[in-house]
Amino acid sequence: MPLAAVTRRVHFNAAHRLYNPSRSDEWNQQIFGVCSNPNYHGHNYEMDVTVEGPIDPETGYVIDINVLKNLVEEKLLNQLDHKNLNLDVSWFQELIPTAENIAAVCWKVLAPELPAGRLLRIRLWETPRNYVEYEGR
Amino acid sequence: MPLAAVTRRVHFNAAHRLYNPSRSDEWNQQIFGVCSNPNYHGHNYEMDVTVEGPIDPETGYVIDINVLKNLVEEKLLNQLDHKNLNLDVSWFQELIPTAENIAAVCWKVLAPELPAGRLLRIRLWETPRNYVEYEGR
Amino acid sequence: MPLAAVTRRVHFNAAHRLYNPSRSDEWNQQIFGVCSNPNYHGHNYEMDVTVEGPIDPETGYVIDINVLKNLVEEKLLNQLDHKNLNLDVSWFQELIPTAENIAAVCWKVLAPELPAGRLLRIRLWETPRNYVEYEGR
Amino acid sequence: MPLAAVTRRVHFNAAHRLYNPSRSDEWNQQIFGVCSNPNYHGHNYEMDVTVEGPIDPETGYVIDINVLKNLVEEKLLNQLDHKNLNLDVSWFQELIPTAENIAAVCWKVLAPELPAGRLLRIRLWETPRNYVEYEGR
Amino acid sequence: MPLAAVTRRVHFNAAHRLYNPSRSDEWNQQIFGVCSNPNYHGHNYEMDVTVEGPIDPETGYVIDINVLKNLVEEKLLNQLDHKNLNLDVSWFQELIPTAENIAAVCWKVLAPELPAGRLLRIRLWETPRNYVEYEGR
Amino acid sequence: MPLAAVTRRVHFNAAHRLYNPSRSDEWNQQIFGVCSNPNYHGHNYEMDVTVEGPIDPETGYVIDINVLKNLVEEKLLNQLDHKNLNLDVSWFQELIPTAENIAAVCWKVLAPELPAGRLLRIRLWETPRNYVEYEGR
Repeated sequence: MPLAAVTRRVHFNAAHRLYNPSRSDEWNQQIFGVCSNPNYHGHNYEMDVTVEGPIDPETGYVIDINVLKNLVEEKLLNQLDHKNLNLDVSWFQELIPTAENIAAVCWKVLAPELPAGRLLRIRLWETPRNYVEYEGR
Repeated sequence: MPLAAVTRRVHFNAAHRLYNPSRSDEWNQQIFGVCSNPNYHGHNYEMDVTVEGPIDPETGYVIDINVLKNLVEEKLLNQLDHKNLNLDVSWFQELIPTAENIAAVCWKVLAPELPAGRLLRIRLWETPRNYVEYEGR
Repeated sequence: MPLAAVTRRVHFNAAHRLYNPSRSDEWNQQIFGVCSNPNYHGHNYEMDVTVEGPIDPETGYVIDINVLKNLVEEKLLNQLDHKNLNLDVSWFQELIPTAENIAAVCWKVLAPELPAGRLLRIRLWETPRNYVEYEGR
Repeated sequence: MPLAAVTRRVHFNAAHRLYNPSRSDEWNQQIFGVCSNPNYHGHNYEMDVTVEGPIDPETGYVIDINVLKNLVEEKLLNQLDHKNLNLDVSWFQELIPTAENIAAVCWKVLAPELPAGRLLRIRLWETPRNYVEYEGR
Repeated sequence: MPLAAVTRRVHFNAAHRLYNPSRSDEWNQQIFGVCSNPNYHGHNYEMDVTVEGPIDPETGYVIDINVLKNLVEEKLLNQLDHKNLNLDVSWFQELIPTAENIAAVCWKVLAPELPAGRLLRIRLWETPRNYVEYEGR
Repeated sequence: MPLAAVTRRVHFNAAHRLYNPSRSDEWNQQIFGVCSNPNYHGHNYEMDVTVEGPIDPETGYVIDINVLKNLVEEKLLNQLDHKNLNLDVSWFQELIPTAENIAAVCWKVLAPELPAGRLLRIRLWETPRNYVEYEGR
């Protein structure tokens, strides 16, 4: 069976602040600049979730894109959308909500919900000019 | 002299919350839903600023796009970018920071900085699927 | 109260064929070319629905964008999405489903669902390079 | 000689329906939902064709992008554009025209037209939020 | 007959330089900065051409978008695409090729090729963040 | 430490001409067509610079995206933006400024400015429909 990769792009809005509580305010200001503003700022995040696998000859699908969409909404967007990542989301209790960490956390939450080895990549656009990719390595 | 309109698209990130303090929490929850979450959420805002006027035969410009860009950065983005609109921006002390109100405030701040009648429109994208336009009426 | 315009962009997929049954096949082929292929072709349509009105001082809204989105889904997308416009949609029983006519029909269906004078414009993208606009005139 | 990859994005419109004739209508409805509507629906497909190879020092090209464009138009778009994939395209006589299968078929048709090993990837966008990739594996 | 507006987006690449030969080099450098570099720079221009008119009940068209596309290619793109606007295009012999002036010239060339009053607007994107509009006034 | 890849998209405008001075004008015209026009044409280039590395647990960053942006502006955009690639940029004294060669040169200039092995990819969009990728091989 031929192998293909299927990507669904989803959207969420959230507030966040980049701040490492184990370091001083001066260190945080120097490292994170305006991204560390105490009252938070926010983003429209676009997330591309890519699943790889054989094309099922019965359906022509690697995965039903609506199944993938619903899974991402249930497991990821319900936690993230219209939230304050620092205050409202337990995943970031001890993790700075940079794009890198958001992508890695989403990978770790989503991978066990799919057959082993199927989740190929999480790509997270923080702005139209910046994105990160995490592949579970 | 022929008349043309020139548009510059700029970007800012901000956190906000939709909340009317003169009404109950129930009313706010009913009207604004997740947009009223107490810990804020956020957006990448794209703003299109349109200036109309005669094409100067000496320069071929309605307005130097870099002059417009710098003016918008100084008067608007310095106030809005990487901020919490509710907490950090005086314009929203008594005004709910909906896209409509952000656009209208930006128009009122920017219009007096340009020759009379030149500011044609502020278009504000709150997400890739929602935008508002304000033309000073 | 200041006046603003609010736009929601929605999406639907459909098949269609451009064909005027009162004219000959030759005429149809000459006028519509490949767009007249008997077995249909299709598009991802993006539709921008614009509503204009005063900004309500209680909410900061011209219209709640979710109310607008739900109205468009109920009245328009339920009829159009994943359909064959020629065969499945009664609006095109006697009307050729060009982008112009789809936009005009959507305007006529949606306008009575909103307060009088509020629906400003339907903009319909048939491809990333072609769009039409209808404003009820 | 350094190795680079060159991508050309092309566009086609088509109607299709997801339906496995060896299974019952109930099964098809359950698996494919509205994508199985009997009268077809359609899409604007964007296809990114990627060719990899050494940069020719005489031309600075991996491949002349116009040669690639013309090849894709001749071999792929002539078959697919403004067509009903189920009824008009022989490639889908016994293959369900999902995005996965369209990408895999295009790869199989195009690869022999290029020097061995040069076709790296076919990426097919079925909507602005869904795409698949096939790399010949 | 209902009135609608139809827009076709076209593309061209060109080199240009902003320079007013009746003024000093210092004045040009001060006004135009890097846009005045003597050896030229360039852009991918996207141009939206909008035609307004009644929807023909026989065809459902304001104008056949392919007729519009071919007209724009013949009258405008043949002059502009892959050219040096200052050196190769007679329209800019005595006119600085700013976006404003390119849009106005295109309007003047195209309007007489269409029925009177039909050409509504030329919108010219010089970069993804800057555009100008000219409506024949 | 988990590995992630971070991408920053930057923009520059430039004029260029594809021409191999060691071959005849006829050869150049045949190979490069309008891209060889003697007076140059130009593009808005979008460049995606991707850096891969471990996510630093102190900052949550692979690399501070502003550090990357400033590095790219200093080392690459200062040389390329608003320039004539053939005449103004020493990198193309003996190299044809195709997209492939521009990407490869940018990789060679940027890689030594980053820790070894961190620069993963340069992707260069020459138009919205064409891009090349170079990964240092």
